[in-house]
Amino acid sequence: MLVFGHMNPDTDTIVSAIAYADLASKLGKDAKAVAQGAVTPESAYVLEKFGLATPEVVTSVAGQQVAVVDTTELSQLPSDIGEAEVVAVVDHHKLGDLATSQPLEMWVWPVGCTGTVLKNMYDFYNVEIPKGIAGAMMCAILSDTVMFKSVTCTDADKKAVEALAKIAGVADPMEIGLEMFKVKSAVDGTPIRELVFRDYKDFDMDGNGVGIGQLEVVDGAMLLPLVDDLYADIAKVKEEKGHHTVILMLTDIMKEGSEILYVTDDKAVFKKAFGIDAADKSFWMQGCMSRKKQIVPDFQGKAFK
Amino acid sequence: MLVFGHMNPDTDTIVSAIAYADLASKLGKDAKAVAQGAVTPESAYVLEKFGLATPEVVTSVAGQQVAVVDTTELSQLPSDIGEAEVVAVVDHHKLGDLATSQPLEMWVWPVGCTGTVLKNMYDFYNVEIPKGIAGAMMCAILSDTVMFKSVTCTDADKKAVEALAKIAGVADPMEIGLEMFKVKSAVDGTPIRELVFRDYKDFDMDGNGVGIGQLEVVDGAMLLPLVDDLYADIAKVKEEKGHHTVILMLTDIMKEGSEILYVTDDKAVFKKAFGIDAADKSFWMQGCMSRKKQIVPDFQGKAFK
Repeated sequence: MLVFGHMNPDTDTIVSAIAYADLASKLGKDAKAVAQGAVTPESAYVLEKFGLATPEVVTSVAGQQVAVVDTTELSQLPSDIGEAEVVAVVDHHKLGDLATSQPLEMWVWPVGCTGTVLKNMYDFYNVEIPKGIAGAMMCAILSDTVMFKSVTCTDADKKAVEALAKIAGVADPMEIGLEMFKVKSAVDGTPIRELVFRDYKDFDMDGNGVGIGQLEVVDGAMLLPLVDDLYADIAKVKEEKGHHTVILMLTDIMKEGSEILYVTDDKAVFKKAFGIDAADKSFWMQGCMSRKKQIVPDFQGKAFK
Repeated sequence: MLVFGHMNPDTDTIVSAIAYADLASKLGKDAKAVAQGAVTPESAYVLEKFGLATPEVVTSVAGQQVAVVDTTELSQLPSDIGEAEVVAVVDHHKLGDLATSQPLEMWVWPVGCTGTVLKNMYDFYNVEIPKGIAGAMMCAILSDTVMFKSVTCTDADKKAVEALAKIAGVADPMEIGLEMFKVKSAVDGTPIRELVFRDYKDFDMDGNGVGIGQLEVVDGAMLLPLVDDLYADIAKVKEEKGHHTVILMLTDIMKEGSEILYVTDDKAVFKKAFGIDAADKSFWMQGCMSRKKQIVPDFQGKAFK
């Protein structure tokens, strides 16, 4: 069985695939964590720190048994997923358009991170979490919840981090979290396209292609010299993909908000989705830290109605 | 929050809605079990036996918070489910085409009955199961697994029945199970259309409408005098719904197999789905007791390719 998460894998997708594969193996299944693409610098830092191997890249899964973590959106899964047998899903997002032809096991919770669901699955199945995997899961939760600052963060996430830190022998999770976000924030010398795609997802919204990326930095000021290049590149992405709208959230962790950089066929989508008269090229959304909870639902539900 | 299962509710759908509403209430949510239609004689027997109220019929849910049990197929849900906020799903079927705009809680296991998943949810949340609900859940599992004879039955289902029987103070679950199946088998004086729709579901398979009903009886011989009328009625159902195929499984619990009564635009679907050269009007499938596991997957996967 192959275990993987979404395209443009983030730390939660990578670590949750590793954790689920570990759990499934210990429950007697033959399971291997893979990824649909190269890991981010943040994930590389986490894997290195906790001594875990980087999952091999696999993008075709026809004929295989698979378990999917951290998404149920077909647009974020291998194009031949329909020819695979999906036996399990672990996720924390809205329910997407993945469907199966056989009954399966699904654990989906409205929490900040798939890692939190997996922590509870290990407990449910009475399986011990290996020290290294526990540390990486702790980091995945800190990353997805922006160190508990995201509106997506729940008590279950905080409890899981506390328990996982104990297992991993980490005295101060926040210290590692900040270190991790500094790695994530590093933009010097990174190609612009890589920044745009660092945490990027495509959606089909009422027949309109929409791309939404998010770039989280500890201090938004460090992105100022790059904004023009980032803007030019999302315009290119929009053209290449034939999308209606491409958004790049420049999320400032300290200020707890996001500058929404965008290219669109019709600015009215922002008025319809958020009630905002968008300035040209970008606008600020105070308190907006979560694509999943603060951008996608309103955009999907209202922008094209 | 309204809690309900699929159209043409069976005992699992009715009892699981009641159980989830009870669990959610005890976890501090305002929850009410409802149903999309009248209960079957079997369900009426179970509700009566364990002193539970019959859920009110509700078929429109726009603007409501809802929890869905025992299905994720839009064709089996209220037509305005897209305007409801689905906050939870508990199921044991393949993943269908229900999607949500917000993160949600999902418990889906590949077991014989949604009741089995709910038993484990009660345990997970450390909530005591009321005696009456435990007895009804026990019956739901015995019904869905055809008293453990169905291929869908798992160890988890058997364990759940054992534990629920203890809570309900039932010494011999199989005795109640057989009594229940006798009620279910009762066909005398029941209108033919009611028999056809007793446990009937519509599917969209590659753009083709397919209706599949199942009539389980302790002894198939009791259906013999009705076969011609049942056949004529599924032909009518096919015409009324504009379906490609309508199937009625006449499942013999003692013989452990089903006579597949059918009306179709193209008999080749049975060859493609099951490798069977179907005789006119009907054919026998030994060992076939489960629509979910032994009919739907092959039919959906192969009949229209």
